[in-house]
Amino acid sequence: MYAERIAGLKSSAIRDILEVISRPGMISFAGGLPAPELFPVEQIKELSQRVLSDYGPSALQYSVTEGLLPLRKWLAEELSPDLGPVGSENIIITQGSQQGLDLISKLFLDKGSTVFVENPSYVGALQSFQLFQANVLAIPSDEKGMQMNALRDRLRTRKPAFMYLMPNFQNPTGVSLSMERRLMLAEIVKEHNLLVIEDNPYGELVFEGLSHPSLYGLGGTGNFMYLSSFSKTIAPGLRVAYIVADREIIKKLALVKQGTDLQTNTLGQCLVYEYVRSGGYSEHISLLRKTYRHRRDCMISALETYFPETVTWNRPEGGMFLWLTLPEGSSAEDILQHSLEQDVAFVPGQVFFPDGTGRNTMRLNFSNAAPHTIQEGIRRMGEVLKRLGI
Amino acid sequence: MYAERIAGLKSSAIRDILEVISRPGMISFAGGLPAPELFPVEQIKELSQRVLSDYGPSALQYSVTEGLLPLRKWLAEELSPDLGPVGSENIIITQGSQQGLDLISKLFLDKGSTVFVENPSYVGALQSFQLFQANVLAIPSDEKGMQMNALRDRLRTRKPAFMYLMPNFQNPTGVSLSMERRLMLAEIVKEHNLLVIEDNPYGELVFEGLSHPSLYGLGGTGNFMYLSSFSKTIAPGLRVAYIVADREIIKKLALVKQGTDLQTNTLGQCLVYEYVRSGGYSEHISLLRKTYRHRRDCMISALETYFPETVTWNRPEGGMFLWLTLPEGSSAEDILQHSLEQDVAFVPGQVFFPDGTGRNTMRLNFSNAAPHTIQEGIRRMGEVLKRLGI
Repeated sequence: MYAERIAGLKSSAIRDILEVISRPGMISFAGGLPAPELFPVEQIKELSQRVLSDYGPSALQYSVTEGLLPLRKWLAEELSPDLGPVGSENIIITQGSQQGLDLISKLFLDKGSTVFVENPSYVGALQSFQLFQANVLAIPSDEKGMQMNALRDRLRTRKPAFMYLMPNFQNPTGVSLSMERRLMLAEIVKEHNLLVIEDNPYGELVFEGLSHPSLYGLGGTGNFMYLSSFSKTIAPGLRVAYIVADREIIKKLALVKQGTDLQTNTLGQCLVYEYVRSGGYSEHISLLRKTYRHRRDCMISALETYFPETVTWNRPEGGMFLWLTLPEGSSAEDILQHSLEQDVAFVPGQVFFPDGTGRNTMRLNFSNAAPHTIQEGIRRMGEVLKRLGI
Repeated sequence: MYAERIAGLKSSAIRDILEVISRPGMISFAGGLPAPELFPVEQIKELSQRVLSDYGPSALQYSVTEGLLPLRKWLAEELSPDLGPVGSENIIITQGSQQGLDLISKLFLDKGSTVFVENPSYVGALQSFQLFQANVLAIPSDEKGMQMNALRDRLRTRKPAFMYLMPNFQNPTGVSLSMERRLMLAEIVKEHNLLVIEDNPYGELVFEGLSHPSLYGLGGTGNFMYLSSFSKTIAPGLRVAYIVADREIIKKLALVKQGTDLQTNTLGQCLVYEYVRSGGYSEHISLLRKTYRHRRDCMISALETYFPETVTWNRPEGGMFLWLTLPEGSSAEDILQHSLEQDVAFVPGQVFFPDGTGRNTMRLNFSNAAPHTIQEGIRRMGEVLKRLGI
């Protein structure tokens, strides 16, 4: 009865955990949720008045599939210093970056097409590729991102329809692709004429160190597509994100989006546009950076206090996630069960590994909970680990 | 480079015409646009204050894939008299009905699957089925909707993955499926154990005559899925619509939606919910009915005045569209070219026919333009027809 692509389709562990974490009293390090108390609610409230007065009914009417032109123009200017010359015709607004992935999958993937990803990789992307029946191949990755030698090896026998990377503060590991590897990647891509999807939802959330240049800027329009979103910098419930690509690809994506949902919601696009040009946007991003850096530091400090020495973690220079490694043989799934009994949720790392490894890893989100809650949650998890003898 | 499904994918003639009609001075009978001056802009403005105060940040945060629970509960109560017992677990909120069609296609269609549709049928649905590489078979239809004998004939040799119908004031023809045929269809569906997608965006826009019972209500949950939307009754730019189906199907659709766009925009859902429960909704629908009925009558009266006798049209009892038939051998495409020179746009009917017929038909939208504009547009079209000797 169902299409072939549905067989084996599983619910995202993360979305399922989102249901659990709505229980009162639950401390959640599970979702990739931004801190709601930082949402610019008052400004959006004011802007919704202004938008509905100034735009009038057109803020509620059907609009063009490619997205609100002034917003695309603003993005083009904003992105050009990093991405190179970008015009509004290189941009399509999407209903969140998850839709960006859906449209790209629709445009490029046939049943059996190959996609290269980092190992581990963003589970929502894996779901999207799976819905289009792609073969997802994980390229070995480490604390500097995807390993370029491993990529070269893979390319000897397989050429992917595209390659998918999150080069800045990756979900789930928080790792960024090193500058050296970015340059190597740009070379390999040119040499093999590959198509690379650069997904950058967390790039603005940089706490320290250098911001690396985008792959799109290093490698050029023809071989790269760039995705980003206002979900992490303004608010995810507005569902406004975008794809930057060659104009011919944007035209095709618009065709595909016509048949997919006609257009992104008009009111959300108007609100985002008025917000980014209102002047408070860069201060708001500074506030996010400061707050999230503090929360990362609180979490690391709590881990140092409460976690056994057998567990290790990284110290990402931005984003929303810490990545933990348990001793070989431990199961993060088991720990989750015990942890939920103590009202603490996180995501076991295995779901992010296309190759099925990673049983002894876990992803902890530090953006959503307040510092004292972070401390309490980590304390409870520490007790669970001790009780389990880890 | 592109996926197989992209070959032959054409832009919707309607979306392309939407670009043309944004030219100043253009009179458009082309899009399926509701009258913007009737959008409840002031109420949405007030409600956006209330929503952002009362819901606070949660109106802007990620939310569940199935959609805002209070809205689903409201819908369940609202729909049960017509559809039979419906609970919130039978409903998923979608990003417009176009996304409903995308999710359904993803869930049920493999490459080469068969879909039965009316002839003509909604072009956005045809696009969606094409993106999933279905074989679309058009079942002969007339002024009472799909012909049940023709359907029986088709079922002798083919069983479709599903059948797609718009039983009320269909896009493009404005035709409704007769009560007699509804009962026959319910029988045929049971006999052959078919799956039917009942798309009902215009059902509330009834001007006169009886409202027919839904197919879903006549035939039962197992074999029917029901789609409707707030695009035509509140505002399309909010992108809030819904699917009603068996709860197991809803669960699968939610899985598919996770990988497609995570969720429908939160703010739009909150606004729609607060609007429908605010009490003014049914009066607003009365206003839409009254206004659109008047516009239909103006258009028919103008047609009678300005169009040659060789052209015929119907008189739909609701919805947004009139359907015109030109003399055999005429081409609505040709007329469109001349008509655009006179700054009047419409949609040639051929795009709605999966079997490629219908060159001498056209769809005229009467909901979007004011009465005097309707009269002027029809007058100009009448002159074009005379000049072309039709």
